[in-house]
Order: sequence, then C-alpha cells, then structure tokens
Amino acid sequence: MVYKIPSLVESLVSDRAKKLIELLDDFVENVSSMPNWEKEKTDGRQVVPNVIEELKKKARKLGLWNLFLSKDYKEGAGLTNLEYGLMAEITGKCLRLAPEAINCSAPDTGNMEVFAKYGTPEQKARWLTPLLEGKIRSAFAMTEKAVASSDATNISTSIIRDGDHYIINGHKWWISGSGDPRCKVFLVMGKSDPNNKNKHRQQSIVIVPADTEGITIVRPLTIFGYDDAPEGHCEIIFKNVRVPKQNIILGEGRGFEVIQGRLGPGRIHHCMRSIGACERALDLMLLRVTDPSRKTFGRLLAEHGTIVADIARMRIEIDQARLLVLNAAHMIDKKGAKGAMKEIGMIKVIAPAVLLNVLDRSIQAHGAAGVSDDFPLAAMYAAARTLRFADGPDEVHIQQIGKLELKRAVEIGKNAEKRPRKIVSKL
Amino acid sequence: MVYKIPSLVESLVSDRAKKLIELLDDFVENVSSMPNWEKEKTDGRQVVPNVIEELKKKARKLGLWNLFLSKDYKEGAGLTNLEYGLMAEITGKCLRLAPEAINCSAPDTGNMEVFAKYGTPEQKARWLTPLLEGKIRSAFAMTEKAVASSDATNISTSIIRDGDHYIINGHKWWISGSGDPRCKVFLVMGKSDPNNKNKHRQQSIVIVPADTEGITIVRPLTIFGYDDAPEGHCEIIFKNVRVPKQNIILGEGRGFEVIQGRLGPGRIHHCMRSIGACERALDLMLLRVTDPSRKTFGRLLAEHGTIVADIARMRIEIDQARLLVLNAAHMIDKKGAKGAMKEIGMIKVIAPAVLLNVLDRSIQAHGAAGVSDDFPLAAMYAAARTLRFADGPDEVHIQQIGKLELKRAVEIGKNAEKRPRKIVSKL
Amino acid sequence: MVYKIPSLVESLVSDRAKKLIELLDDFVENVSSMPNWEKEKTDGRQVVPNVIEELKKKARKLGLWNLFLSKDYKEGAGLTNLEYGLMAEITGKCLRLAPEAINCSAPDTGNMEVFAKYGTPEQKARWLTPLLEGKIRSAFAMTEKAVASSDATNISTSIIRDGDHYIINGHKWWISGSGDPRCKVFLVMGKSDPNNKNKHRQQSIVIVPADTEGITIVRPLTIFGYDDAPEGHCEIIFKNVRVPKQNIILGEGRGFEVIQGRLGPGRIHHCMRSIGACERALDLMLLRVTDPSRKTFGRLLAEHGTIVADIARMRIEIDQARLLVLNAAHMIDKKGAKGAMKEIGMIKVIAPAVLLNVLDRSIQAHGAAGVSDDFPLAAMYAAARTLRFADGPDEVHIQQIGKLELKRAVEIGKNAEKRPRKIVSKL
Amino acid sequence: MVYKIPSLVESLVSDRAKKLIELLDDFVENVSSMPNWEKEKTDGRQVVPNVIEELKKKARKLGLWNLFLSKDYKEGAGLTNLEYGLMAEITGKCLRLAPEAINCSAPDTGNMEVFAKYGTPEQKARWLTPLLEGKIRSAFAMTEKAVASSDATNISTSIIRDGDHYIINGHKWWISGSGDPRCKVFLVMGKSDPNNKNKHRQQSIVIVPADTEGITIVRPLTIFGYDDAPEGHCEIIFKNVRVPKQNIILGEGRGFEVIQGRLGPGRIHHCMRSIGACERALDLMLLRVTDPSRKTFGRLLAEHGTIVADIARMRIEIDQARLLVLNAAHMIDKKGAKGAMKEIGMIKVIAPAVLLNVLDRSIQAHGAAGVSDDFPLAAMYAAARTLRFADGPDEVHIQQIGKLELKRAVEIGKNAEKRPRKIVSKL
Repeated sequence: MVYKIPSLVESLVSDRAKKLIELLDDFVENVSSMPNWEKEKTDGRQVVPNVIEELKKKARKLGLWNLFLSKDYKEGAGLTNLEYGLMAEITGKCLRLAPEAINCSAPDTGNMEVFAKYGTPEQKARWLTPLLEGKIRSAFAMTEKAVASSDATNISTSIIRDGDHYIINGHKWWISGSGDPRCKVFLVMGKSDPNNKNKHRQQSIVIVPADTEGITIVRPLTIFGYDDAPEGHCEIIFKNVRVPKQNIILGEGRGFEVIQGRLGPGRIHHCMRSIGACERALDLMLLRVTDPSRKTFGRLLAEHGTIVADIARMRIEIDQARLLVLNAAHMIDKKGAKGAMKEIGMIKVIAPAVLLNVLDRSIQAHGAAGVSDDFPLAAMYAAARTLRFADGPDEVHIQQIGKLELKRAVEIGKNAEKRPRKIVSKL
Repeated sequence: MVYKIPSLVESLVSDRAKKLIELLDDFVENVSSMPNWEKEKTDGRQVVPNVIEELKKKARKLGLWNLFLSKDYKEGAGLTNLEYGLMAEITGKCLRLAPEAINCSAPDTGNMEVFAKYGTPEQKARWLTPLLEGKIRSAFAMTEKAVASSDATNISTSIIRDGDHYIINGHKWWISGSGDPRCKVFLVMGKSDPNNKNKHRQQSIVIVPADTEGITIVRPLTIFGYDDAPEGHCEIIFKNVRVPKQNIILGEGRGFEVIQGRLGPGRIHHCMRSIGACERALDLMLLRVTDPSRKTFGRLLAEHGTIVADIARMRIEIDQARLLVLNAAHMIDKKGAKGAMKEIGMIKVIAPAVLLNVLDRSIQAHGAAGVSDDFPLAAMYAAARTLRFADGPDEVHIQQIGKLELKRAVEIGKNAEKRPRKIVSKL
Repeated sequence: MVYKIPSLVESLVSDRAKKLIELLDDFVENVSSMPNWEKEKTDGRQVVPNVIEELKKKARKLGLWNLFLSKDYKEGAGLTNLEYGLMAEITGKCLRLAPEAINCSAPDTGNMEVFAKYGTPEQKARWLTPLLEGKIRSAFAMTEKAVASSDATNISTSIIRDGDHYIINGHKWWISGSGDPRCKVFLVMGKSDPNNKNKHRQQSIVIVPADTEGITIVRPLTIFGYDDAPEGHCEIIFKNVRVPKQNIILGEGRGFEVIQGRLGPGRIHHCMRSIGACERALDLMLLRVTDPSRKTFGRLLAEHGTIVADIARMRIEIDQARLLVLNAAHMIDKKGAKGAMKEIGMIKVIAPAVLLNVLDRSIQAHGAAGVSDDFPLAAMYAAARTLRFADGPDEVHIQQIGKLELKRAVEIGKNAEKRPRKIVSKL
Repeated sequence: MVYKIPSLVESLVSDRAKKLIELLDDFVENVSSMPNWEKEKTDGRQVVPNVIEELKKKARKLGLWNLFLSKDYKEGAGLTNLEYGLMAEITGKCLRLAPEAINCSAPDTGNMEVFAKYGTPEQKARWLTPLLEGKIRSAFAMTEKAVASSDATNISTSIIRDGDHYIINGHKWWISGSGDPRCKVFLVMGKSDPNNKNKHRQQSIVIVPADTEGITIVRPLTIFGYDDAPEGHCEIIFKNVRVPKQNIILGEGRGFEVIQGRLGPGRIHHCMRSIGACERALDLMLLRVTDPSRKTFGRLLAEHGTIVADIARMRIEIDQARLLVLNAAHMIDKKGAKGAMKEIGMIKVIAPAVLLNVLDRSIQAHGAAGVSDDFPLAAMYAAARTLRFADGPDEVHIQQIGKLELKRAVEIGKNAEKRPRKIVSKL
C-alpha cells in the first residue's frame, strides 16, 4: 500500500475501513495502467472514457462502491465521514477516473444524499436506485446567470404550481454534469413563493427529468480554456418546463433546508480529494526536480535556489490542511453537519487555497510543460480554481467564520470580569 | 484621453511622444468598438481576426507603427524605451488586437531588432523590410523539449556546416507564433560547435524560411486549455533542414551574443503590457463590485468584507510595479541593456507576479464568470502565467539579482572598516 | 559619495540639491565615527547624546539645516519635497543622530510647519524662531488614552474659553518627544465646541508652554521593551491648564484644518527615512551573510537555502517603495498635499510594511544577535512597528485608497457604455 | 472548564489526563486573579514573582507537577506527549507564571530529561531531585558568541581532561535562565576532542555548578528591549572552570547524542505553549474589536475593513497548527523522537510563524497600546520572535524537511516505472 493513514486518526479508523483503504489504494494505483484509460476524443472532443464501465464493474466487485454514503443511510457503505474522507483523498490522486469508478463523484453524491434523505419511496425507486447502481448521472441546477447566486436568496427561477404540475422558467448556468449524455435528471432550485416574508422559505427544489420538454442546453462554459466535456458546466434555459407536483423534494418552501442538508459531507469529499490532488502535484514536482535530464547550470533543479524550501513549505501546508479536514469530518461524525459549521467553513477556504498554491509551485518547477496538457497540473489548477467560489465564495465563508469567532467575545469578557481587569491585559 | 502619464516621468516624455500617446490611447479605446472585432472562429478554431488588416492600415496612417524600435535604429520611430514603455502599457489593455495593429507584437519585435542590429543588407531586404511593413510574421525557435532550456547552454539542436549550407536537426517546442499562416521565417538557435570549451560560443542562430523542406509542425501546445490559435505555441521537428550559409546571423558561435542583445527592451515591452493588463483587470473588477445586479445580502460586492482593501492593495502593487518598469526603461535609455541588468531582472520577476495577483483577485470578484470566456480574465491569466518562465524562470532571475546585491557586501565592508566597528552594528 | 540618486528622478533634482545631497551623505557617513557618538547612559537611562550639539553646529555650517521646510516657506531651504525626500532617505541610515543633527526631526518638523503656515508674528517669534535654530524642541499632543483616536473626532480633551484664556483638561498619551528636557512647548488638540454639528469644526489646537501649571507627565510608555528616552512617548494629564487666548492656532474650530495641513510632507519624510533604514538593514544583512566567521555546515550563510532569494526580493521591494514615495513627493510638489491624497495614503501603508519585512529578514540572518541591542535592528523594528498606526492605522488608509479607486467605476462605466457591451467583457 | 480538547484527539486522552486538564485549566484561569501576581519590580528591575512559591505549593497539591516528564520516565507523571501537549497549551495562556508554577518551564524541563535519561545515580541525587522538587533552577550553555552555533559543530568552548577534572574555557551567550538567583547548575557543551574526524563525536556535555570559580556573568542580553529579568539570557565567560570528571554526561564525545535526545518533546512543549499564546492573543483581539469604547467613525473596530476576515484567518491558522503539533506529539508517543523527525521539524517552523502573525494582527487591533506593556502582546511578540532561531533557525529545519521529502522521489519514481510513462504525467 502506498497510502499512509495519518498517525493521529489511525485509532479512529475501523479494521473494515482499513481493508477498504488498502483495496482502494491498489485500485487507484492500477487504474492508470489500463491500456486505454485516456478519455478518447473524436475530432478533439472529449467523451466518456471507454474504460469507465469496466472499472466500475471491477470496483463494485471489490466492494469499492458508494462509499460516500455514511452510516446515516441504510443505502450506504456504513463508513464514517472520517473514514470515507481518507478514501476520498486517495481518489483525489486520479480525479478523472477514480471517483466515478467507485460511484462517488460529484454532483451525483450530493444528489443521492438528497434522494436518500428526503426522497419519497417513488422518488427513490425512480432516481436513487439507478444512481446508486451507476446507471445514470444527475445534475443540480442552482446557479443563475443574471443574479449573484452566491446569495442563494437571489435565485429567481420561478416554480409555479399549476394544478397537478409545477411550471419552471429560468436561466441557469454552471450546471456541472449536465452535458453528459448519461445525465438523466436535474434537481432544480427556484422560487415557488417569491413573496414569502421569510427569505429562506421562498425556494423549492423539484426533480426535472433531463428529457422534459422546454429545456435548452445553450452551451458548455469553459474554465480557463477547458470545456470539461463530456460532463461540462452548461448554461441551460428552462422555458415552461412542466413536471408533476409529486416531483417536489420535501415540500414547497423547503429548498434551503434541502441544500443545507446536502453541503456538509460533500465539502469533506471535495477537500479530501483536494488533499489527494496536492500529493499528486507534489509527487510530480519531486520527480521533476530530481530528474537528471532537467539539469540546469550543472545541477538538478532541486539543488537550485528555493526549491527545497518550497517543497518543505508545501509539505507543511498539505499536512496541516489534511488534519483540519479530518477534524471537520470527525466533528460531523460526532455532532452532525450543523454542529461542525465553523469547521466546515474553515476547510472550504483552506483546502482549495493550499491546492492552488501547491499546483502553482509544481507548475513552476515544470516550466512551460507545466501549463500544457502533457502534465495534468494545468487542468487540475483550472478545476481547483473554481473551488474558491463553488458552493459560495471564500469571502462568504471567511465572514461566517469570523463572525462565529466574534461571538466568543461575550464569553471571554464574562470570564475576564470575574477577575481584576489586569487579567485581561496582563500576561 | 483616458491614459495618464505618471507624474514622476512626465518631464522625460517629449512632446512628440505625448502626441503619439494621445493618438494611441484613442485608437485603443476605439479598437474594441469595431463591429466585428472578435477573432472569428470556424468550427471552434480561432483564426486571424478579420479586422486586423484594416486596423493596421488605420494605425500606420496615424503614425502608430513600429513604435517599439528605439532611437538606436534608423528604421525605428525614434522614441526612448521609456516613451514606448508608456505606449506598451496602453496596448496592454487590448492584448488581442492592439500590439499587432501597430506592428509591435512579440515575437516579431524581438526578431526585427535582431535583423536591424545584426542583419546583413541582404537579410534585411528579404526579412526585415516585410516584417517592418507588417506583411509577414516570424518566430524564434529556441526552447527544446528534451532538455531544460532555461539554461540555454543545454540546447542541443545541431547546426552543421555542409559546404555552402547548414543542416539543422532538432526538436523544438513552445515556438510562439509558428502556427500563424503568415509566419514566414524562423530564427533557429542550435549548436554549431558543440565541443567548444567556452560554453557560450557553441551556439549559432540561423534564418530558416518557414517553407523549407524538413520542417514538421507536430502540434500546437495548450496553455491552461487554450491553444492560442492561430499563432499558437507549436512543437516543431527540424529534420535535415538545409539553409544557405548566408543565413547565419552575425557568425558562427555568436548565438548567445544575439539573444542577449535581444532581451532588454523586449522585457520592458512585456512588463509594460502587463501593467496595462493589470489596469484592465482592475477596471473590470471595479465595474463588477459596483454593479447593482450583483448585490448579495442586500449590499454591493464592494460593501462586503475585504473587497475595498483588496482593491487598495492592487492599486499600490500596480503603481509600484509601473514605476519600477519605467525606471528600468530609463536605465536602458541611459546606460544600455547591460547597464540595466539588475533593473531588468527585477521587473521580469515582479510584473508578472503583480499581474497574476491582480487577475486572480479580479477573477474572484467575478465568481464563476471570471474563469469563463465571457470575460477576458481567465485567458489573460493563462497568458500571464507563462511569463513566469518565458525568457527564464523567476528562479533564475531572482538568483541573479540576489548575487548582484551580494557583491555589494565588499564595498559596504570597506566603508565600514574606515569607521570604528560600532558603526557597522549600531544605529 | 555612497548615495545614488535614482535614475528616474535625476533630472528633477537641481544642482544645488545635488550638492547638498553630497554634503549630507558625507556628513551622515561620518557621523557615526565620532568618538563617543552613542547616547550615553547613567544608570541605564538614555540621555541626549552629548555629541548632538557639536553635530548641529557642524551641519548648520555646511548648510545642512532645516532642509525639510519646502519652497512654500520663506524660512525654508527652498528645496522641493522630492529633493528633501532624497535627503531624508540618507538620514534614515542613522536615525538616532542624523535627523536631529540637521534640525529635521519629528515632531519638530511638523510643528515648525504649523507655526510657519498658521502662526501669528508673535507665535512665530516666540516658538518658531528657537525651533528653527534648534534651541528648543516641541511635541504634538493629540492621541488620547480613553478613546480610539485614530478617529480624531473622538478626541475629548476640553479646551474651554474663560475670559482671555483657554482652560485645558484632558488625558493624552503617546506624546512623542515630551520626555525630552529640551521640549519647551506642546501643541494640544482638543474640543473647544463639542456640540458643533459639523464634527470637523469642534476641535481647536492651542499652544501650551511645557512649564505651564497643571501638566503632569505620568510616565513614558514603552514600545516593545524600549522607552526611547530621553524623548520618550509620554502619558500626560492636563488638569485646568490655563493659557492666554492668543495661544490658539488659526482660530477656534480649525483644528482639523491644521492637522491636515501638517500631514502630507511629514509622510514623505517618514517614508523616505524608512527607505534609508531599509538600506541600512539590508547592508547589515549583506555583511552578515558573507561573514566568513558565520559559516555553517562549511558554507557562508549566503550559500544556504533561500538567503539569496530573500535578498533579491528585498531589493525589489525597497526599490519599488522608494519610487512610489518619490512619486508622491513629486505629486505634492506639483499639486499640493490635497492633490496627492491617494499617493500619500499609499506610501503611508507600504513604506512601513516593506521596512518591517526587511528588518525581520535581516534580524533572522543575524540570529539571536539580531534581536539584541548589539545590532540596531531590533530597536529599528520596534520603532518601525509604530508607523503602522501612527497618524492613522493601515486599515484607515487602505479604506481611503480603496474608496478613491471605487469612485473610478463611474467613469469606467461611462467609457464602456459608449461601446458595445462586449468591450467591457472582452479583451 | 474553558479549555476544549480538540475533537480529533479526544479518544487518545485518558480519563486521568482529562481530569488533570480540567484542574489545570481552572488553576491557570485563577492564577491571574491572585492579588499581587505581577512580577514585582525594585527600581524598574524585575524579580522572581513573590507569588510563585505559593502557586507551586498549590499546584503540587493538586497533582499538577512535573507533568512534562512522559511515561518513559519513572520520575514522571505518566502522561503521553500528546496529553501533556494539551496541558502545555493551557499554560501558554499565562506564560509568565503557569509553566513555572507546575514545574514545567524551560530550560529546566529539558535539563531534567537529560538527567533522568542519562544521569548517574549520583548526578540524579544531586541535581535531578531538587529540580524535580522545584527547589533549584538550571541552564543549558550551548550557544556561543564568536561562531554560528546554529551549526553545533562550530561550538568551540574547550573541555579538557586534566587528571580527575575537566577544565572549561569558553565564551557563551544567550544562556536562558542563567540570571535567575535560583539557577544552581549549568549543563555546558564544548569540545573535548576537537580533532576527532567524526565531527559529531568531538563534543561533550559537563555539569557545572553555578557557583564554580571562573564563571563570569557578563551581562543579560535584551530581546527587543526586554531583559527578561530575573532569568535573563546572559553572556557568560568560562575561564579555567574546573569540575570533577564525574560531572560528564553519558561520556566523552557524546554531546550530540545528548542534545538530540533532549529536543523532541521540548519542541512539543514550546509549540503547544505557542498555540496557547495564540489563543490568548486572539481573545484579547476579540475583546478589543468589540469594545464599544474603541469605536471609530461610529462603528466597532470589528465592523471595519478586514478585521473579521483577519480573525477568521487566524482561527484557521491556529487550528491547523494545533493539529499538526498534536500529530507530532502522537508520532513521538508511537515511534519516538527519531521516528518523528520530519513532524517535529515542521512544527518547529510553523508554530512560531503562526504565533507571530497572530500577535502582530492583535497588536495592530490594539493600536499603540498593543506595542506598550499595558498589554502583554509586545512582550509575547519579542519572546516568540526568538523561537524562529532558538534550537536552530527556520532555515535549517526547512532544509531538513525539504530534503526528507526529496528522498521520496526515488520511491515515487519506482512506482511510476511499473506503469506506462503516461501515468506519471497524466491525470
């Protein structure tokens, strides 16, 4: 096994999880050696890698399947968030294939959680089952073009009840996964009650089959120059899209409740995959700076300037971030996502920041090759950059963390008052 | 006029240059309003913008032509490096069209300098004249795939004398501009005397017409997913490419001399364009954060968190970098590129760093739109990122600057010795 | 001459100023070689250095006297702010002696400006003349203990008219220079009209002779562990302190006007001295890292790790900051302090930041010796640290700069509107 | 209880340790409320706080005594390094009194470890016993003035065998604790075999009673103006100091072995105290920025600019650093100090860096008061600054960490070779 469980959490990992980690580590190490693992292209367009179905079969047989669904769900693999977090790190070393191969790739994971947590038996039968079996894929349609949707109360797609149906009109974009031909269903967020005084009760989420009439996929958006085909991040217009009223999730006005329930574990997944991606980027840098064919002025790159110091700082940053994410995962395991709000906010900010920094330094060590697609670093950078605003920009999370800290001032002040003033100011 | 000449250098700018700056500023402000200024695409491929020839005519008529060639060249516009620097900043606000429109775009500028400085009358007639007239384009083939070419002595393409010809064999990549159908000539660097004990006398540069037999353009490389067509940055194989011996520049073994003569002013151009790009990115950010349609939680983006502070810091960083670049330009004007070595090294490091930082913050303010091609920021970021290793990575320049500083220790020590020891250590 | 005038501004410096710069440079280089130049101590207390009067005589004879008072004042040396800025840099290399030796040390400089600009003939005769002659020193009493005086409208010392007198009551602290036995006069800011609806018309400034009854100097405050005796930064209580009504500066309610008039050039002085201090700290570091007696693991410190890169980055930071300060000085020369508001704000933030960074890196290169008083670095650091809130904390200036930038959005938007929308978003 | 055990390590903390943590937390919270807890001063000199003996009695009665000595020592409290780490954090909130009150203050802790680990029964009886009882204090004399002692092989104090004695000659400085009147013994490092070809076998450590003839305490050194009396950091000359040969620790030539055995746990202590100091500095900042009396421009400091964001980032930095230190502590518990070398190096670098940053931001929020001794922040900053070179400068540790990482390249390369080349470069 290449992967090492961090010393500090080893006692929190069950023997079964350790076994799965070992299997997964081998699986991921071998994934890349498949003869034709690359996404094939026809006329320069990326498509679903042809090895993916084979990999999924293999993974499922090994028990590496739906690992993300925690103990809370009977459909899940019975792992803690911390345990799956370690596995998510491993998949982060091979982002293109590994998460999907074990049926743990976003946005399907979050959507499966929604169905598992809030779905009716009918909704589960129709959508959760094929998703859990890896037969279809899905998308979550929230972000809108015309408004600042990092404040979700701005979302203005309308979801209007019309007899036994809802009629949906709106203009979404950045709907990840919606370009995949296998994407069969959208969860669409919009306003069913735009005049409700409680701004957090105006929104609902409805299930919209991807082949419903009135849906136009305008274009895939690019991230830097990547279109991330086939999944893509599409701009989509919903025009008089009609779905039966049974397609509502949880009930009208409960959209915020649903999205909040969806966020906690998903952030652990993202962040731990980011840690895995950090390790991969650092590995590549280590190979590069010790590669005799890249000598300059008679010395290995590693023997020049600040390279060694850069590597040391990367190691510190990565190890710190990993522990912080694992701590958040453990908090979710013990207190639920709500009780771990501050911890989740912190990792949401720091994991992408560390990853971008590590990627940037690794790119620099690779020179021009680093920004090309001969190495995976540039594509990883592009993807990582979006994590600084996906699910809310850094700025929003930083403010929330800061405000939670500020609240502590009251208690500190109270403790201080018990003592003479000098306690506060002295020592 | 939108552009403001920095107060500190105003007295160094001639009236004629001020007039040109005004013309150029208007020209660039209006460039974008042309009805079909975008690069057109056929089947998703970028081509030469169809407006470019029209723009070139217009610019030339206005006297905005070949401004980069300084007083040192009779073919030039007679401007100082500082004066042209200010103009380069203006073109940096519209990188796609403006530099080419005034026939001041890389790598042609550097190549024209080479021809003007070192070319024989025949070489000038055949290549410099059409370049100066904007009729053809050119490329500089130096970087190689198999070696770390940031140490140029590693370059291993062979240039072998065979009677009245040179025969060239080698594998280059990142040859910017070589994908442009109008690119008619390469300057190719390679080893004509690989066993010369003086490592800096092994190299020569030869002129290779683009249509010479034996040249294979393998592929355009991508930069964060962008292929930068039509110019592109191509991988090229030279196989038994044969050119007449008259095609050598300056003489055998003088390759290093040529590339060093080519670098100084070119860095001023790059860096000042970077400053212009900074201003553009900041302008876009100012518009975004004050845009009422992007309000979140009831407030403009500018009214949240650290946005105002970020903007202030960007302003400081940009203004500092601009002055440093102008100082370097002025040093070249007064002492030549050699006398300004430290100054040129410093701007080579700092200008791209500031630009990347400004772009990153501006992208963040734009959210997901910032990484897409609905705004120019992501493409600018990709291009700017390459500046941290083009013409030598940051690390090489930082070491050179540091070592030049270290040399000062001797003199400081001597001055200190004249005084009692406490001078050194006290106050 | 050791000092080099930056290339970019050389043409803005008159021959007379160049001559003075040369004299001053020699003077400062030699100051330290005086046999007993150290501040002597009696029982561990610092006192006025006994060499200071001798130095003042020497300097005055050389014409190095009151150089700070710009062309605007008939009492001044007739230099531009830019020219004096260069001289201030030189004095920054020997902060303990040089500024005072040429009668250009704070807070006297600012106070002399106030007297010169706003003083009545009587006020000038009594206070400005001896200050200009270096016979007395002075203090500016603004900051208060009980309120956040970075918002000067919070200042609550009362200045109440009582017949032909003003009666002053208040509790000040951080009154720099007030501990010096030669400090003979305070300019005291307080509220003469606390109920004025215009918050910026409530304040007045009065002249208070240091020996007036009712003044208690409570204690000198320390900065880190330094008490900066003899000048000190004292806590002072004013209790029923009575001065004649003629002691008001400019008139009742005009306190803000006075302090604003006092700030611009003073910031140039501070910032350029900071640049000089940077150079001194870097010089010490260069000596240290090339000192053969400090070899570790067989190599000079300069040959280890990131030292060379650190030095290179320091050089870039210092050179950038210097140019920015000189640009601000030139703006004041051309447009007055008001017209240079943004520029002055920027240098107020960046110069201390660069100095602290340079000092910190130089300290690190010195190891434990760096934090001791065997080298001047730690004391310089302590003093420099206060510059981040003296005359308003970084945060206030950053906000002001940012808001001035934000105002540009309107104009940018207007220019953009003239053109099709794509101009804004596309290259 | 105010202190919260981090979720991630809770299961690693025994019930007994949890009880001790609770007791210690209460003890430290109350320490400061003692009527005259301040270090008293006579004529401005600090002395041993008069409350200290009383506190020690109290602590010992509570079982809060010698907690630092881990399970490995029969004299110890039987705690793991991780458990004591949590307690060290708590004492970091009251650095002046708490560590000494529980007999866990440096450099005594390290010296006690040396005696416990390597001492003969006689050495233990004479020195370890009174140290464990808190009756005497001690110092470790390693650093020298004339050489760069961050490379310990440079140390040049001579320890020469003369019959039944060793004779010691050398010039030490920065000998912390040596100014304390209760300091009764020095461990002195020097060269007993300066010509040994193995550079790490030249050194020995001998026990030198503080009252031995030939020892001159030259002066206390200052740290940013603080002399840290009474302990102090003294310059000491050893001139023909003679001690019996039984005073050698472990044997001749084994100095390096001793100092290496001494370092691991001590770094956990330092780093966790730094985390506690961070929390204290943040607490003070939270109080300050929410203090209604510090309003500026009508708003709390917390409502201005970047304060909230600064606080959020501090929280992230502190929490990350704490987990990294605890991970290192746990590694020592499981694999010993040698097995945790990389982890120990990482915390040695990051904990002081975070602390300095947190202190600096907290100081800034306090304005001028922050650098004075009305708050503890400036003194904490001065002390924290020394941690960046105490026990080796950052630079040395960074290089070691980087080189350990570089070694991984071989294994990564081997794994990569098993797979087609594209594995290395793709995904």
